[in-house]
Amino acid sequence: MFDFKIIKKTSKGRLGLLRTPHGDIETPAFIFCATKAAMKSMTIAQVKHSQTQIILSNTYHLMLQPSSEVVRDLGGLQKMTGWNGPMLTDSGGFQIFSLGHGSVASEIKGKRMSHRPQTMLSINEDGALFKSYIDGRMYHLTPEESIRIQQNLGADFIVVLDECTPFHVEKSYTRSSMERSHRWALRCLNVLDAPAQRLYGIVQGGVYDDLRKESMTFVQEHAFFGVAIGGSLGQSKSQMHDVVSMTMSHMACERPVHLLGIGGLSDITHGVKENIDTFDCVHPTRLARHGGALVNGHDKEHINLRNSMYARDDSAIELGCSCETCHTYSKGYIHHLLKAKEMTAYTLLSIHNVYFMNKFMQDIREQIKNSE
Amino acid sequence: MFDFKIIKKTSKGRLGLLRTPHGDIETPAFIFCATKAAMKSMTIAQVKHSQTQIILSNTYHLMLQPSSEVVRDLGGLQKMTGWNGPMLTDSGGFQIFSLGHGSVASEIKGKRMSHRPQTMLSINEDGALFKSYIDGRMYHLTPEESIRIQQNLGADFIVVLDECTPFHVEKSYTRSSMERSHRWALRCLNVLDAPAQRLYGIVQGGVYDDLRKESMTFVQEHAFFGVAIGGSLGQSKSQMHDVVSMTMSHMACERPVHLLGIGGLSDITHGVKENIDTFDCVHPTRLARHGGALVNGHDKEHINLRNSMYARDDSAIELGCSCETCHTYSKGYIHHLLKAKEMTAYTLLSIHNVYFMNKFMQDIREQIKNSE
Repeated sequence: MFDFKIIKKTSKGRLGLLRTPHGDIETPAFIFCATKAAMKSMTIAQVKHSQTQIILSNTYHLMLQPSSEVVRDLGGLQKMTGWNGPMLTDSGGFQIFSLGHGSVASEIKGKRMSHRPQTMLSINEDGALFKSYIDGRMYHLTPEESIRIQQNLGADFIVVLDECTPFHVEKSYTRSSMERSHRWALRCLNVLDAPAQRLYGIVQGGVYDDLRKESMTFVQEHAFFGVAIGGSLGQSKSQMHDVVSMTMSHMACERPVHLLGIGGLSDITHGVKENIDTFDCVHPTRLARHGGALVNGHDKEHINLRNSMYARDDSAIELGCSCETCHTYSKGYIHHLLKAKEMTAYTLLSIHNVYFMNKFMQDIREQIKNSE
Repeated sequence: MFDFKIIKKTSKGRLGLLRTPHGDIETPAFIFCATKAAMKSMTIAQVKHSQTQIILSNTYHLMLQPSSEVVRDLGGLQKMTGWNGPMLTDSGGFQIFSLGHGSVASEIKGKRMSHRPQTMLSINEDGALFKSYIDGRMYHLTPEESIRIQQNLGADFIVVLDECTPFHVEKSYTRSSMERSHRWALRCLNVLDAPAQRLYGIVQGGVYDDLRKESMTFVQEHAFFGVAIGGSLGQSKSQMHDVVSMTMSHMACERPVHLLGIGGLSDITHGVKENIDTFDCVHPTRLARHGGALVNGHDKEHINLRNSMYARDDSAIELGCSCETCHTYSKGYIHHLLKAKEMTAYTLLSIHNVYFMNKFMQDIREQIKNSE
């Protein structure tokens, strides 16, 4: 039921087919964030109509609310959300540790969590102890517990628990953390007992070539279905590109490769060239909630419809865009909805941004098909 | 292009067809509130798929933001919103005066505006002076100005400016206010110059039979396309039913009749029996934003999905309901979305409630068709 086939390899990247019991994914593909089991401000029909292939939910949020047991009792993520398509869950680690270190925030992935209270209490060989941001309850997340929770959630692809170290730590900490993450990854592999799920290992090693090589080798030597590139990718876009290139240069097997938390258009283009197959990021839907619409041919890769220059603009966000939003609504109307704080504005912009990303990935696949 | 035909009259109410340049409305019908030119948390495709026939927008909100000129420049309400179906706008009076009197709030229509600052400054023969709740700018709304604004907005049905007196005023004030509203209504009729729009007069008179009769006679004696029942309908549901019955007993012409601001299921059933053709209320979408889902056979006419009893309930809101929400999602999932403050929850509940109201009106029409 699960399979990954590389259809074509070119200098522009590789074309693949990722098969799951819930459907196929043509790669390169973008994975959208349905953090709490919903893509913010969208219905699942809108997600589907926007040509989405695969979505992810976050173990961290769902284990706290409504709990993985409730999700399981409601039929698992695919049934509960009405999506019934391919899904991925992360391990819960990223949120716990970025809250703990309180720092990934300001780095390249652009996660903004500095306004949240410190909730991580301790981390040791066994796992991590943290408090719920909702009700202060204590949770102990171990590699085994992360797998158990992800089995309850029921996504097709699940991910090993790892520590996400921030950029600013010493290389020695990055190494010891990587080594512990490897031990955790093996513990995840050992307890995995889900014929309907496949596990991704995570390549750590921060910005250090020797560590990235060691971590990539580790993941490839063990029976992980896929390879996810995690950890700190540096402080700038160019450093991130370098780290991705350096990491991928150590890739020797033909497993699907996921780049965690990266969603900028130019970053995706770069990643695809390095043979990354899938990407995920909150960017398309978060941007929508800030009034932003993804567009082609713009330095910032988006325009902000809060800008009063759009107040009387009766044209669509992008000429030629086939999304429901561009088909029906003008920039002027969306500007009005944003000013009036109407929730519909976020829905319309999310529809456009999700469709845009899917079209962007489709165009990338076309380019690979048509290139040598 | 405009027409109103009564197809059948029975003891259960009357069946009609209301024609506009933007489409036909089978009556009795419910008019949904797209206050600021959007039905809150819904896209226009969702509004259409929920079997909606007609929506309304509020002149008060739109004249302040984005201004009627901007709406006109964006193609008018029907084009701007993508609805392209029948629409109504009110005169702006209700909001101005209910803010001014600060009292309609606690009465039968259930509008809750007590948290808003006092913005009405003065009212005299000419019109009303008020401050924008957005930026404090002064506005002078006269009958002529209300019509000018509603012509810019471009709805099919527009409404005369009237003063909405609250329940607690003396009969003598209700009379003099009614007489001024009649003079305002004639001024509206005099300046009306819109072949693509039709004007509703408003029956005032509070809870007093003689005043209601006088006002109903006034509206019927002049060239208004339709009759709207406005003003205070009393302090309780039973008094409201009495005032509606009393008012309708003075109705002698065959014009379409609209009951302003009433949307309870039992109130609609009562109104239909008294030959009311259309109703409007924020209830279906406001209820959704508070976690409520309209259901049949329940004392409160709804259930609240915030209730923890629904946390693991994997059944739809209503068995047999054909709306997108009931087709796809469980009560347990919607409960989770509400607890997690996901906007999608409001969308899913609005889709159900709007579909429910349209089905409710359709069933009423079927009952009239099948009765003597």
